[in-house]
Amino acid sequence: MDIQKLRADTPGCLQVTHLNNAGAALIPQAVIDVQRDYMNQEANYGGYETAAKFADELQTTYTRVARLINAQPSEIALVESATVAWGKAFFALDLQPGDRVATAMAEYASNYINYLQAQKTHGIKIEVVPNDKHGQLSLEALEQLLAEDKASEGKIKLISITHVPTNGGLVNPAEEVGKLAKKYGVLYLLDACQSVGQLPVDVQQIGCDMLSATGRKYLRAPRGTGFLYVSERILQDLEPKVLDLTSAKWTAKSAYEMRTDGVRFENYEYNRANRLGLSEAVQYALDLGMENIWQRIQQLGNLLRQRLVELPNVQVYDLGLVKGGIVSWGIEGIPAEFVVEKLREVQINTSLILESGTLLDMQERELPPLVRSSVHYYNTEEEIEKLCGELKKVILLYSRIEHV
Amino acid sequence: MDIQKLRADTPGCLQVTHLNNAGAALIPQAVIDVQRDYMNQEANYGGYETAAKFADELQTTYTRVARLINAQPSEIALVESATVAWGKAFFALDLQPGDRVATAMAEYASNYINYLQAQKTHGIKIEVVPNDKHGQLSLEALEQLLAEDKASEGKIKLISITHVPTNGGLVNPAEEVGKLAKKYGVLYLLDACQSVGQLPVDVQQIGCDMLSATGRKYLRAPRGTGFLYVSERILQDLEPKVLDLTSAKWTAKSAYEMRTDGVRFENYEYNRANRLGLSEAVQYALDLGMENIWQRIQQLGNLLRQRLVELPNVQVYDLGLVKGGIVSWGIEGIPAEFVVEKLREVQINTSLILESGTLLDMQERELPPLVRSSVHYYNTEEEIEKLCGELKKVILLYSRIEHV
Repeated sequence: MDIQKLRADTPGCLQVTHLNNAGAALIPQAVIDVQRDYMNQEANYGGYETAAKFADELQTTYTRVARLINAQPSEIALVESATVAWGKAFFALDLQPGDRVATAMAEYASNYINYLQAQKTHGIKIEVVPNDKHGQLSLEALEQLLAEDKASEGKIKLISITHVPTNGGLVNPAEEVGKLAKKYGVLYLLDACQSVGQLPVDVQQIGCDMLSATGRKYLRAPRGTGFLYVSERILQDLEPKVLDLTSAKWTAKSAYEMRTDGVRFENYEYNRANRLGLSEAVQYALDLGMENIWQRIQQLGNLLRQRLVELPNVQVYDLGLVKGGIVSWGIEGIPAEFVVEKLREVQINTSLILESGTLLDMQERELPPLVRSSVHYYNTEEEIEKLCGELKKVILLYSRIEHV
Repeated sequence: MDIQKLRADTPGCLQVTHLNNAGAALIPQAVIDVQRDYMNQEANYGGYETAAKFADELQTTYTRVARLINAQPSEIALVESATVAWGKAFFALDLQPGDRVATAMAEYASNYINYLQAQKTHGIKIEVVPNDKHGQLSLEALEQLLAEDKASEGKIKLISITHVPTNGGLVNPAEEVGKLAKKYGVLYLLDACQSVGQLPVDVQQIGCDMLSATGRKYLRAPRGTGFLYVSERILQDLEPKVLDLTSAKWTAKSAYEMRTDGVRFENYEYNRANRLGLSEAVQYALDLGMENIWQRIQQLGNLLRQRLVELPNVQVYDLGLVKGGIVSWGIEGIPAEFVVEKLREVQINTSLILESGTLLDMQERELPPLVRSSVHYYNTEEEIEKLCGELKKVILLYSRIEHV
């Protein structure tokens, strides 16, 4: 990987030390160019007319996304965000009163809020699988839950977990969970919002039935892009809660027919420039190779953790047997908000981890707000040193403020 | 209205004769500039960091949209399309088996497909109100339906109609429908996808409880933008089917609290550049004045209808007492597809009306595919003459092809 070339491809690398890739990564010039060109065409020739002209390029997005996760293009729905993707899948499942959904400690707030809504409106039950000693979802506990359920009522209809949580380096054992889902015949929805683009995600190996992902994070695509994978094994059985004249066709006064592919989960209207930006960003990742990307991110993530704990009173909170590019940490006695703000003043982008984003995990570990620094392959060892250098100043500054 | 200045503000006016404003209108330079500037900032400083910097500008979008339709900013949800807006409202209503929904003949396919889904999954009943002699929704028939329902079971829970249909010049009497909705205490959802930006739409005057709209059509905003209005009278009673950590907050292990304003219907993730583009487009319309815009569009629409019927074998199919900028027409013996294609070859943008878009109306009137030419205020009398001149050539060309 030619890091200097990759940085030269990324205008933002000249302006900021971007350690907020788990928020939204910096966009490569190639992605910006594709968007600008398309928007220029739209402005000059019209929205529908340009869409018709770029029909092939728009279609190619499915092929590229499918290749990225080892799926079929017909199993992909292109939508506006991971949240939309996840919601389309979850609410198409038609869970019945008494049905149980198994999830994990590090579950993302948006997903959990929807479990709670489904608990209230559909009478489902939520089962939270505890962590193992490494801090990842306990496979032993999950298997016990599934086995007990199978032996009694067989009410567990779904395993729904977050692959890589928003609040730390943890990578949940998605593949092993997939084996258990298959063994016990339970549907498996994987929230891959932070993992797609960061590490190799292969839906065949993982064995998930549905997977949701975003463009803006590790894929380096425009904001307002995302996708849903639904396996052809179950696609025809799912009816999304909102349809339109693209996902379905009004065939007679009292009849409609849904699309038989992933487009069933889409709407007619979307921003085409953004979709082409997603397509380009996916191709960019494919060209670099997800194994290479993952190796570099792990290496930088580990270096960052190592250098952080060498600083006085800095503690790193990442869990898991396998750790990725999201690093969660804090400085004893200094509010995380203060740290994030001071770093921003010297063009270092990090973000704040709040309890409400991953409430189960944060409360269980009794964690205060933390700082999140998330590295991508285009970050450098020098940037990590810069962060640590600035942190020393922040610590000194805060001690002075405190003593005034 | 200084039409030449408005055209000079619109790059597309130099390239095409754009009579597809009911598809997606040409975007003003001011909107393009706002988007480009924002995207440039994002590329250089990061997605989250730029969003924080532009927080005020993003917030202003609510104020402007609210002003456009005479609502409160807290009654607005900014979403990705009219379809998303409409679906968020409709599926939040929690209709019960036996509940009846009243709609109209010109109802849009996407809405009707969702009624059919709700009929299948929730057991609702669909009541289609016939047209009056002008071709608009019959207020007499609607009142009769509401009165009979009130006198018996009181099962009509919703009036849900399209203000301006996708397939013609009709403007349904939204305000009079609102009076009936109020009189009989029935909720009222108005699909204003083709009307907002074309004519003055005032939710207080109309008396609707919910209204959905898009950015890309008569508002001249970027694709992938739209909004939902939900009156404060009912907002707190509606729970959207998909929530996330912006529309709700995860407050305790088994509890969440929804936002109390329109953001309850939004997601955290969206494309900020597009939203600012919508904001700018709305301001552009406000500056011109919706009364002025509507007057000009009606004038051009009427001129176009008048000139079209002067051509041999051309028939115009627009219904309604009040007619807007959407003109539906056909040439006897010539397929509409052929006409649209030939016009496109000479840079005249029109579009095709198919049965499946407004099936009830098209089947009732036994209409074949038609041509749709939709004018905006920036179109000119010269463009209408150009269209008619080219149509004469198309008619001649087709007769030659036919005789070969």
